[in-house]
Amino acid sequence: MKIYVDLNSDMGEGFADYKLGEDAALLDIVTSANIACGWHAGDPLIMNTTVKEALRKGVAVGAHPGFPDLMGFGRRSLDVSPKEAALYTLYQTGALSAFSSLHGGELQHIKLHGALYNMASVSEPLSEAITDAVQAWNPSIILMGLSGSLFLKKAEEKGLKTAHEVFADRAYNRDGTLVSRKQPGALITDPKAAVERVLQMVLEKKVKAVTGELIPIQADSICVHGDNPEALRLAETIRSQLENSGIRVQPLHTFL
Amino acid sequence: MKIYVDLNSDMGEGFADYKLGEDAALLDIVTSANIACGWHAGDPLIMNTTVKEALRKGVAVGAHPGFPDLMGFGRRSLDVSPKEAALYTLYQTGALSAFSSLHGGELQHIKLHGALYNMASVSEPLSEAITDAVQAWNPSIILMGLSGSLFLKKAEEKGLKTAHEVFADRAYNRDGTLVSRKQPGALITDPKAAVERVLQMVLEKKVKAVTGELIPIQADSICVHGDNPEALRLAETIRSQLENSGIRVQPLHTFL
Amino acid sequence: MKIYVDLNSDMGEGFADYKLGEDAALLDIVTSANIACGWHAGDPLIMNTTVKEALRKGVAVGAHPGFPDLMGFGRRSLDVSPKEAALYTLYQTGALSAFSSLHGGELQHIKLHGALYNMASVSEPLSEAITDAVQAWNPSIILMGLSGSLFLKKAEEKGLKTAHEVFADRAYNRDGTLVSRKQPGALITDPKAAVERVLQMVLEKKVKAVTGELIPIQADSICVHGDNPEALRLAETIRSQLENSGIRVQPLHTFL
Amino acid sequence: MKIYVDLNSDMGEGFADYKLGEDAALLDIVTSANIACGWHAGDPLIMNTTVKEALRKGVAVGAHPGFPDLMGFGRRSLDVSPKEAALYTLYQTGALSAFSSLHGGELQHIKLHGALYNMASVSEPLSEAITDAVQAWNPSIILMGLSGSLFLKKAEEKGLKTAHEVFADRAYNRDGTLVSRKQPGALITDPKAAVERVLQMVLEKKVKAVTGELIPIQADSICVHGDNPEALRLAETIRSQLENSGIRVQPLHTFL
Repeated sequence: MKIYVDLNSDMGEGFADYKLGEDAALLDIVTSANIACGWHAGDPLIMNTTVKEALRKGVAVGAHPGFPDLMGFGRRSLDVSPKEAALYTLYQTGALSAFSSLHGGELQHIKLHGALYNMASVSEPLSEAITDAVQAWNPSIILMGLSGSLFLKKAEEKGLKTAHEVFADRAYNRDGTLVSRKQPGALITDPKAAVERVLQMVLEKKVKAVTGELIPIQADSICVHGDNPEALRLAETIRSQLENSGIRVQPLHTFL
Repeated sequence: MKIYVDLNSDMGEGFADYKLGEDAALLDIVTSANIACGWHAGDPLIMNTTVKEALRKGVAVGAHPGFPDLMGFGRRSLDVSPKEAALYTLYQTGALSAFSSLHGGELQHIKLHGALYNMASVSEPLSEAITDAVQAWNPSIILMGLSGSLFLKKAEEKGLKTAHEVFADRAYNRDGTLVSRKQPGALITDPKAAVERVLQMVLEKKVKAVTGELIPIQADSICVHGDNPEALRLAETIRSQLENSGIRVQPLHTFL
Repeated sequence: MKIYVDLNSDMGEGFADYKLGEDAALLDIVTSANIACGWHAGDPLIMNTTVKEALRKGVAVGAHPGFPDLMGFGRRSLDVSPKEAALYTLYQTGALSAFSSLHGGELQHIKLHGALYNMASVSEPLSEAITDAVQAWNPSIILMGLSGSLFLKKAEEKGLKTAHEVFADRAYNRDGTLVSRKQPGALITDPKAAVERVLQMVLEKKVKAVTGELIPIQADSICVHGDNPEALRLAETIRSQLENSGIRVQPLHTFL
Repeated sequence: MKIYVDLNSDMGEGFADYKLGEDAALLDIVTSANIACGWHAGDPLIMNTTVKEALRKGVAVGAHPGFPDLMGFGRRSLDVSPKEAALYTLYQTGALSAFSSLHGGELQHIKLHGALYNMASVSEPLSEAITDAVQAWNPSIILMGLSGSLFLKKAEEKGLKTAHEVFADRAYNRDGTLVSRKQPGALITDPKAAVERVLQMVLEKKVKAVTGELIPIQADSICVHGDNPEALRLAETIRSQLENSGIRVQPLHTFL
């Protein structure tokens, strides 16, 4: 039996003249691109270029909608209503979908950004409203979210396709949630350990929690970064080690 | 032979708690709604409500994209590049299309807003870029624009469907352009005269220019307003007078 | 001994073409105007007009800074850092102060808006950072805030002048905090009761809590509204009843 | 007789997490900093840091207000009214002034940014409105603008202090205006030539126009950039060559 996994990264996070991240290099490594939609980062020109380049390189494109908070890069919790969360998600996803249509592609997935991602992971009303709206809009799109989260459970209950996302460089609590960045030990800083964790998550569907236990985890997609040369190198190593272990690294839509 | 015409109005032009225009009343009169997309007016909640109500009442929905200038209501010229104009149009149209899909509808048309509408009417590079992008994105959508404008000529050369828009309350120059609002006599303030002009434009394809001559004009759609009670009354009168004259008042997509 | 009280209202809360509130009528009733600074409402033209009219009518002007959330009118909590809260406050206050200088006036006070007001009322780090910044910027400005709040305590510890604000139309908990709008009985809907409560707060420094007890409260300024005709009438009645009771209704700076 | 000149640079042009320009290095070279005010670039945190560092290093601070066009970096003409131009300038200048007061400093000057700078240089109504507003707000502030421009003439007619700005790396037309960047030869790319031109402008009050003639020019301040290592090196060379020629490189307020 073949084992498949997707590699994803957040992209198109510049704005106007401002550059952020090594998108060109990342597009040679990942299989899915989460593209910022102009509210926390990105603008129409950057969205267009990122979608075009991703499609040209065979990378599947997804919307990466966030809070209307350019000044905070969408990282700050905003006390939106469930309806606002749902309609903000659709607005941005619709905007990005125009660019994928423009270049003859199709949106593969939606991955919420930053504080919206975190809030939806644990909030029943937000999860309910967002998955309802996505289902009514386009029931064949894949929802990517925190592995094991309430958000993905809600989506699955409604028959939506989901992608459980894991992080190579983040520690997990015993209950499968991420250790807060404010806690010591939240980040896996040793690249070798990060690669080993990824292999174990994909091959054994397990990860060692920060408290020491091996816990179950589902890894449909692995999140990597391109903010700096080390992050890029780690992403490359993860990809080659996955392939060396016989795992097929492919876009979500090919195996979900 | 039956004669058809569409009645359109700009809608969804509130923002957050701010109200603008009598959308509910207008939706009982017009056959096409141009819905603001969040850049010069409108937000996702208002877009959603406006699309939903329009579809419920059988009014065809279109995108009404404008400049990123909420403070100026999209009325101020902004020196964008042709590429920016095209991608700004697609971004907003894509965003609105998510709401029409959400409610089981389809976008009928795009009508540019304010300064973007005026600039595209006369600029070859802007017209070229916007029509190219729209064609690549969705060649079956209707482009509504100033009757006889360069923008519509460009669209027609590329095989796109166009709707020539006329104004009941605006005076025309001899060359078919609108008399600038800064000129005396720019507005037709007598409701009876406005109605008569509309009938002549639709039935005879002619209008009397500000200089006195009868000039040819194509009227696929008539723009009406809902800013105040008189505007609403004029819109109602125009509709009933058109119908009394045996003209079919229907959405563009039913007869173009 | 004379008793003084200030009447304040939030103003300048339109944006671009959008109107909100009856500022002209309110300026004939209140003694202090809290003027929106462009982030949750207001723009430079509206700020300028509001400041100018307030000064012309002898109403003291204050800055009313809020979160950068025009779409939510600054009412939604945003998880800002203390430093962000402090510098956002200064930015907006500085902007407004240019308009008061332009018209030969001086800023009397700062009153935070919406979610920022509520968050600062109970957060030690936010209170600390904002009062530190205000003190370093201009130690003679008055800080208006929720009567008895942590925010005002912090300000007073640093020697800043404070104005304890009370609400005519809101119920109070036993601890002096406001009953949440989500709770039944949060609003005092009977105008007569509202006026009586105001008189008791000003004359006796007491108010009946929602749980029935009389609790102590300090009322330097009473917040009134101009959103609708009833609100305006209530504001007028409050002013005339205060004056009929021998209380001097004057701007804060004249008696604090 | 001693000759004085100021060296200025645009600064604080990042936004949120986005970096732009080598502000720290530039602050060791220039004598005046034009600090972005949040509308085309900059945010309260960056404004605060830039003002603080400038004052710490003895660099005079000025406001650098631009159009409300973050997506276009304030470089695109926007058809604002004179009143809007004036009040937009005051809003941003007021905001920045709060940060200079916070750190015990005072605003030395205002330099308009990008398209607003260019439009005000040649527009009588914009120049009139902006200089009127600045004069009413603070008649002792210095207005920096294009050397010989209508904007500075207007300011001088009203008794305002002005700083005529020249560019080391730009070619001039015979009438003293800048050669458009769209024309060949618009940029002086040879650093040696740039330095020589600067010396001639400061010492002889002349510059060779693109058409070959020597034309008169007033150089109170020289604009330098920090976008890249070469720009920084050129700025350093200009400063040292000015000093080697006996010219005093000092902030405007010390000699105007």
